Amino acid sequence: MERVGFIGLGIMGKPMAHHLIKAGYPLTVLSSSKAADELSLAGATLVQHPKELTASSDVIITMLPDSPEVEEIMFGANGVFEGMTEGKLFIDMSTISPGSSTMIFQRLAEKNVEALDAPVSGGQVGAESASLSIMVGGNTAAFSRALPLFQAMGKNIVLIGAAGSGQITKACNQMIVGMTIQAVAEAFALAKEAGVDLEKMREVLLGGFAQSKILDLHGKRMLEGNFKPGFKVRLHKKDLDIATKTAQDLGVVVKGTEQVAEQMAKAVAVGNGELDHSSLFLLLEK
Amino acid sequence: MERVGFIGLGIMGKPMAHHLIKAGYPLTVLSSSKAADELSLAGATLVQHPKELTASSDVIITMLPDSPEVEEIMFGANGVFEGMTEGKLFIDMSTISPGSSTMIFQRLAEKNVEALDAPVSGGQVGAESASLSIMVGGNTAAFSRALPLFQAMGKNIVLIGAAGSGQITKACNQMIVGMTIQAVAEAFALAKEAGVDLEKMREVLLGGFAQSKILDLHGKRMLEGNFKPGFKVRLHKKDLDIATKTAQDLGVVVKGTEQVAEQMAKAVAVGNGELDHSSLFLLLEK
Repeated sequence: MERVGFIGLGIMGKPMAHHLIKAGYPLTVLSSSKAADELSLAGATLVQHPKELTASSDVIITMLPDSPEVEEIMFGANGVFEGMTEGKLFIDMSTISPGSSTMIFQRLAEKNVEALDAPVSGGQVGAESASLSIMVGGNTAAFSRALPLFQAMGKNIVLIGAAGSGQITKACNQMIVGMTIQAVAEAFALAKEAGVDLEKMREVLLGGFAQSKILDLHGKRMLEGNFKPGFKVRLHKKDLDIATKTAQDLGVVVKGTEQVAEQMAKAVAVGNGELDHSSLFLLLEK
Repeated sequence: MERVGFIGLGIMGKPMAHHLIKAGYPLTVLSSSKAADELSLAGATLVQHPKELTASSDVIITMLPDSPEVEEIMFGANGVFEGMTEGKLFIDMSTISPGSSTMIFQRLAEKNVEALDAPVSGGQVGAESASLSIMVGGNTAAFSRALPLFQAMGKNIVLIGAAGSGQITKACNQMIVGMTIQAVAEAFALAKEAGVDLEKMREVLLGGFAQSKILDLHGKRMLEGNFKPGFKVRLHKKDLDIATKTAQDLGVVVKGTEQVAEQMAKAVAVGNGELDHSSLFLLLEK
């Protein structure tokens, strides 16, 4: 059984780590983690530094907020990178910039160490029920090695392509989800102001070409005014910043994504950052 | 059996009129219609003017390109309006501005004549297979009276609310469809430029929160480069112009819709107006 080191025990990482313990993996976590005591009780070993964690693990998994945090854990003092030797595998399941993912992949490759970018979708519910979608970028052998670990945490697990392509796919997912939320929010705001019954409208539109998971689930949230997260605006904004930056680097014009990123920034500015991303509706409602 | 007059025998109207004949309705059409001979062979009566058509019909249905055409047929010389008397029913199945629909409803109400706005979605395929979605605005009694006719032409038939609410719902449908196309197009353009396998990406995204009928059907079109209509950019642009104008009148800010309307105008300007609306992808692809 692979020895696993897990860094990042937040809303997502904590249940993911628990699933690995349940699946029988010997797990090491950082003693400085908020959820360290809980994981320790569940059987995890506690260590002081990422380097120490790396030394006592075969596979190192990170689930952190953004690129700077992953780079700090990797390349900072007593970081993962120092402890990385041939045969170990690094898996970053955070949503970070594809450029940062590729850079980490290349730096590790210079040490003959394999790495995968494996961001997830499915949110807290998906993490808790081990039903995350996992979009993976990297080499086939590394993917095959990681697959049993992924299967302990998720369901829809796909190797998309080379290093970075997991993050690209995740960015694309967040673009589509964000713009679809904006689409439904604008339609609902217009219909509401025109006095149209939103529940009837949602029903008829779900039967046609406008159908989407967002119209179904977030349309219902908008109807009910229920904006308890779910997925926070603040985090979706971060993901869209990654997407627009990546598009810029590639010279692809994504004006719709930029428009929604602006809406999300506005939502954060007015104090809605901790609400569910479906709360973009609140910015449009009169 | 109600005697039906049908005005507007285009790509949509012709098959719809055929379905009414098949359902046994005595049908009258204008002799000036392109498809008049074909309908005549199928059993329709030909007349010269909308007024004459109105005189010999109980229910008058219009299926025309836009508000000005409907208003001209209604209020022009020898128009429908002149022939309208109590007991007759006017059904406009065109996609026009909600304001124009409401105005026609009110003018007819002054003559004690009922009217319904009943725009459809489902396109040419839906019209030919009598499986259109029909979004209806107007009074309940008029809706009940029209229901058997709608059932000859469509499947998902919903009375949304008061006069104009069918058109509002259709405008909302077109907003959501347009923005979802733009969302998928931007994601695919980014992924393509980054070297990601679009087919794999589409598959994994369909399993998650980004799922939509557009990602499924139009995503496939983008993959295959198949932009044969389907629904033409030029017509979708017209529908979004209605939506943005309506939003403006109501004081609702719909920046995402405006962005897509601009994309559609650009597509028309570069000569893509007759392509399927999924061809918005062509504007983004490098």
